[in-house]
Amino acid sequence: MTQARETVSFKPGEVILYPGVPGPRDRAFRVLEGLVRLEAVDEEGNALTLRLVRPGGYFGEEALFGHERGYFAEAVTGVLLEALPKEPTPEEVEALAQHLSQALSESYRRIERLATQRLKNRMAAALLELSETPLAKEEEGAIVLHATHDELAAAVGSVRETVTKVIGELSREGYIRSGYGKILLKDVRGLKELAQSRGDGR
Amino acid sequence: MTQARETVSFKPGEVILYPGVPGPRDRAFRVLEGLVRLEAVDEEGNALTLRLVRPGGYFGEEALFGHERGYFAEAVTGVLLEALPKEPTPEEVEALAQHLSQALSESYRRIERLATQRLKNRMAAALLELSETPLAKEEEGAIVLHATHDELAAAVGSVRETVTKVIGELSREGYIRSGYGKILLKDVRGLKELAQSRGDGR
Repeated sequence: MTQARETVSFKPGEVILYPGVPGPRDRAFRVLEGLVRLEAVDEEGNALTLRLVRPGGYFGEEALFGHERGYFAEAVTGVLLEALPKEPTPEEVEALAQHLSQALSESYRRIERLATQRLKNRMAAALLELSETPLAKEEEGAIVLHATHDELAAAVGSVRETVTKVIGELSREGYIRSGYGKILLKDVRGLKELAQSRGDGR
Repeated sequence: MTQARETVSFKPGEVILYPGVPGPRDRAFRVLEGLVRLEAVDEEGNALTLRLVRPGGYFGEEALFGHERGYFAEAVTGVLLEALPKEPTPEEVEALAQHLSQALSESYRRIERLATQRLKNRMAAALLELSETPLAKEEEGAIVLHATHDELAAAVGSVRETVTKVIGELSREGYIRSGYGKILLKDVRGLKELAQSRGDGR
């Protein structure tokens, strides 16, 4: 039996979910198109990216299980979402479990990077991660990221001023070329090496 | 139809799972008794705790989904585990999905703490987390943790020398009393306040 699926769309910058205990009308979502950012925001308005959800990925699954949500979900690009039914099929629950397992692995790597890597190396990792999202476009044979320094700060768990310094350093060293709201990845292999090393001690 | 369940036990310090691509004999586990630590270990042997799995929790679920495992799983105390069948029932998959969703929420908080909190505040959070595991005993009306400074360093993503300094500070300020391999939580409410605040900027 096929079920009609409920879809919903959001514009760039729109908040899809707020932190808190899920209410009876709250839903879990699967991303069909676009990019969703799960983030924490502190009292001063500094955002910290917790996870990026790409097409095929799920978020908001607290609504199925009834525990508290600790994040904002925001549309980074225009997004199209499928709202999961309140009682998903066993196949859907399995796909969800598989996605959560992957997301957990990614968050372990994130924890490792935060605990052991220098900001410059974490930034290289973040640029490479963003290069595999809809924020990246290929222009004249190179990858160009459309991201502000605020967005990069949220991605690495730092603040804009510090990020601006690190982006300047990566530019001078020839890894990237940085323009207004845009970053061109000049040396992807070099960035991969940086992303894999720790920098100077922890 | 009831299925006989396969259980397996490990002694404190034994490695249950190694990082890598799960093989055909690899299994996912549910903790029945004891405490399991998932950790990353760097080239110099420094451990970083990624997650603690308590009774009722699952780990090793990569074996069900076939993606690479990025952690060691180690028995912290003596543990008794249930090995999940290769094809778990829909109820088991749902319980697993629910656990993974909770674990992901916890790892978001971990990411937030690492990105924004000072070590002293993270240590307060780690001591409180450990106080809800089998490493904690009640002695003369107070909670006593059995943990070395190496274990505490792994819990907060730091190194022993730095942890020793922070533990000294928390002792002098009356939050804890520290002995050999033992920490008595003297001021749980004060530790909770510390765990909830950021410390001095990030």
